[in-house]
Amino acid sequence: MTRTPPDAPLRVAVLGCGVVGSQVVRLLRDQAGDLAARVGRPIELAGVAVRRLDAPRDVDLPADLLTTDALGLVSRDDVDLVVEVIGGIEPARTLILTALEHGASVVSANKALLAEDGPTLFEAAEKAGRDLYYEAAVAGAIPILRPLRESLAGDRVTRVIGIVNGTTNFVLDKMDSSGAGFAEALEEAQDLGYAEADPTADVEGFDAAAKAAILASLAFHSRVTASDVHREGITEVTAADIASAREMGCVVKLLAICELRPGSGDGDGDDEDAAVAVRVHPAMIPRTHPLASVREAYNAVFVESEAAGQLMFYGPGAGGPPTASAVLGDLVGVARNRVTGTRGAGESAYADRAVLPMGEARTRYHVAIDVDDRAGVLATVATAFSEHGVSIQTVRQEGRDDDAQLVVVSHGATDAQLAATVEHLRGLDVVREVTSVMRVEGVEE
Amino acid sequence: MTRTPPDAPLRVAVLGCGVVGSQVVRLLRDQAGDLAARVGRPIELAGVAVRRLDAPRDVDLPADLLTTDALGLVSRDDVDLVVEVIGGIEPARTLILTALEHGASVVSANKALLAEDGPTLFEAAEKAGRDLYYEAAVAGAIPILRPLRESLAGDRVTRVIGIVNGTTNFVLDKMDSSGAGFAEALEEAQDLGYAEADPTADVEGFDAAAKAAILASLAFHSRVTASDVHREGITEVTAADIASAREMGCVVKLLAICELRPGSGDGDGDDEDAAVAVRVHPAMIPRTHPLASVREAYNAVFVESEAAGQLMFYGPGAGGPPTASAVLGDLVGVARNRVTGTRGAGESAYADRAVLPMGEARTRYHVAIDVDDRAGVLATVATAFSEHGVSIQTVRQEGRDDDAQLVVVSHGATDAQLAATVEHLRGLDVVREVTSVMRVEGVEE
Ligand SMILES: NC(=O)c1ccc[n+]([C@@H]2O[C@H](COP(=O)([O-])OP(=O)(O)OC[C@H]3O[C@@H](n4cnc5c(N)ncnc54)[C@H](OP(=O)(O)O)[C@@H]3O)[C@@H](O)[C@H]2O)c1
Ligand SMILES: NC(=O)c1ccc[n+]([C@@H]2O[C@H](COP(=O)([O-])OP(=O)(O)OC[C@H]3O[C@@H](n4cnc5c(N)ncnc54)[C@H](OP(=O)(O)O)[C@@H]3O)[C@@H](O)[C@H]2O)c1
Repeated sequence: MTRTPPDAPLRVAVLGCGVVGSQVVRLLRDQAGDLAARVGRPIELAGVAVRRLDAPRDVDLPADLLTTDALGLVSRDDVDLVVEVIGGIEPARTLILTALEHGASVVSANKALLAEDGPTLFEAAEKAGRDLYYEAAVAGAIPILRPLRESLAGDRVTRVIGIVNGTTNFVLDKMDSSGAGFAEALEEAQDLGYAEADPTADVEGFDAAAKAAILASLAFHSRVTASDVHREGITEVTAADIASAREMGCVVKLLAICELRPGSGDGDGDDEDAAVAVRVHPAMIPRTHPLASVREAYNAVFVESEAAGQLMFYGPGAGGPPTASAVLGDLVGVARNRVTGTRGAGESAYADRAVLPMGEARTRYHVAIDVDDRAGVLATVATAFSEHGVSIQTVRQEGRDDDAQLVVVSHGATDAQLAATVEHLRGLDVVREVTSVMRVEGVEE
Repeated sequence: MTRTPPDAPLRVAVLGCGVVGSQVVRLLRDQAGDLAARVGRPIELAGVAVRRLDAPRDVDLPADLLTTDALGLVSRDDVDLVVEVIGGIEPARTLILTALEHGASVVSANKALLAEDGPTLFEAAEKAGRDLYYEAAVAGAIPILRPLRESLAGDRVTRVIGIVNGTTNFVLDKMDSSGAGFAEALEEAQDLGYAEADPTADVEGFDAAAKAAILASLAFHSRVTASDVHREGITEVTAADIASAREMGCVVKLLAICELRPGSGDGDGDDEDAAVAVRVHPAMIPRTHPLASVREAYNAVFVESEAAGQLMFYGPGAGGPPTASAVLGDLVGVARNRVTGTRGAGESAYADRAVLPMGEARTRYHVAIDVDDRAGVLATVATAFSEHGVSIQTVRQEGRDDDAQLVVVSHGATDAQLAATVEHLRGLDVVREVTSVMRVEGVEE
């Protein structure tokens, strides 16, 4: 399959020349000597596919390397490596599949595509005997997929908790540090370039959910796609929630949580019917937790495994140069594999764990309730919790003019138990409103 | 070279069955099914070499697998993989070299050996066409060598700052949180099992220096050995230093610092005569720096690179199970390579950077000086700094009975400039004593 003579350069096609692609092209040129030394052969730019030939670029490019015919580029016989940094489902999927069919090794940063249709791509890579690497798809520059796949390959990962979306972390951090509301903090993020004009993918948790699916697949050697991920965004998080978290010594973060839940066996996690739960939602975590100190638009991924214990990986989760760094790391990897005539570890889905419905996910809850300020209210509310099997850890009561607020923090319970409790509370005479329900993570049940 | 039929188990010899070795053996057994699925073939224990056959072990082992003949074990024809967790220079070196000569792939956790004589081992691995992996040698369970070698292979690393010794971090953290002196904090660390009865290797910085050499070699694609590392331990750190750091909003940590210093070229770091500086010493860092929040015996490695920016890797730096997790991750890696008939990336020393003498290392300094409390003292002291080209950022003066203390924080200067300044200060009439000199890291010059 090696179509290039032993010392000839490896030729790379870059699909997309936007925020990430332009930096990939720049690094390929600036680091050419180092890349050649590390790979064992020079890497040469074969072409760059874009949508508009005349758009301004953040990198100087000879006009004859630019093309709008991406499909033609990946079908060329002299292309050994393909970097896909267009984004979205199509034409990215077709381009990757075509590149693999034509014998190229592929590097992609495309979380949306990997999370939606990863298995199709993995099968194509397997069939072609080529690599498909995608470190940049999760948490930008932070090496997290390779550590999960390789460094922890001898261990059993039990939980991954990530702050994997910089926009929402910036917004929540701003709300925490300034007392601002969601809308105000989002506007500031937009002014500073941390949020897009249409922030839906970020603030509604779609971006984080795609990354959660990718993390869970690798951590648990199973196939998890975006549709398996329970997803809640941060648009409903209020300044009052943040203040309430602060009173508890907590901070609110949008978390991507992937957990291995022991089956009916001996509870050590290797039982056949263990399952995984994957969810993205805002949650309170203690300020002493390593994830709590992740400020502004930084990302971090916290990993728990049986032997290694608690690990954390921290760094910039986005931006042109950081993301290009991750892409180039992958590119050196797949290029080395071509030089040695081998493939890296492909998809590993042997464990084939079932994905639990959200109702079965267990965690702790912080529930704020406006109630009438009269005798017996606390007992009534406590009974509602206990009837649904939700045990209460603490209750704080604050009197206000004619009503009162109860803040309940529960022990571990399932989402279904909590949902039933909240419905029950809403039907109670003494309850005026359940003003906020938020999960509490990073503490023992 | 494959002596085993395609589906036969790969056979592993474990050398040493102490803190780490016993956990390696346990994980090999507990995770056997997962390991087989991830490697593509079962991994089977061929034998375990120890010094004393009758010593109590933290793992159950059939007597016929134990041997005191380590050399015989690694020379056996049915051994594909060798894990070296004995430690020290000999017999570990001879055993690894023999294993490679006999065609085995090797995993080691031996920082002392790797830092002292790595190149001999790398050359033997190269010659044998086999892998030598050693992730566990630096920062225990934290995946840091693989990210440096692979994930950042397309980037230019400019600085690595590590808290890579858990014992000293525990002692310094205890001094910071309780106000205890060094001796008292060390005693507590010993009582709790965080420090050995003979703590020399840890508190004098030998262990951290070995790890610094390994990190610098990988980060800068050059050969750096332990003897290239400037090393100062923490035995001279006083409660007063810690208090002084606190006043500046800093905390004292033992840091392993590996830096790339641009050469005479354009300063972008890729010039031919760029050099590296590698040093281990206690230093003040701002409490807002990500490394400052690394408490107790945890480790963390902070990496700066041109494109990725600032990354941090955090986790347990020692202990049986965490270290065994790193060993097993490597074992899966070398085993996969055997199954696919390939080798991982070997030593990469192509950049061949010179190592700078400590006198040329640049940083900032915190200098505390007892002086006579009389007019003109500050001017005299300031002149001493400026005569040696050390520019002062801040001076704080505290009057005491008949003398005064000056605390000077400098801008960036070389170690040689600082040493000359301190000698000059000591010769001044108005200076009673230079009570403390400590470097300040994690801030711009
Ligand atoms: N930006 C980040 O910080 C970041 C971080 C991690 C991962 N990623 C991922 O990286 C990928 C790229 O993101 P980005 O921010 O670089 O996007 P971008 O700035 O919007 O760039 C997209 C590029 O793709 C080109 N393109 C679009 N449709 C095309 C088509 N049909 N054929 C050929 N080229 C086409 C565009 O061409 P024109 O320039 O001519 O319009 C543009 O150059 C996405 O998968 C994203 O999720 C991005
Ligand atoms: N402990 C950690 O947390 C940690 C963390 C990172 C890296 N490491 C590294 O891991 C390695 C092992 O450390 P460890 O803490 O496990 O050491 P350890 O508890 O002292 O165990 C050493 C083992 O080696 C055996 N041994 C000693 N000399 C031998 C010889 N000549 N032939 C055969 N076996 C021999 C000993 O046998 P007996 O049991 O019969 O005495 C013992 O089982 C070292 O390189 C260390 O630097 C350790």
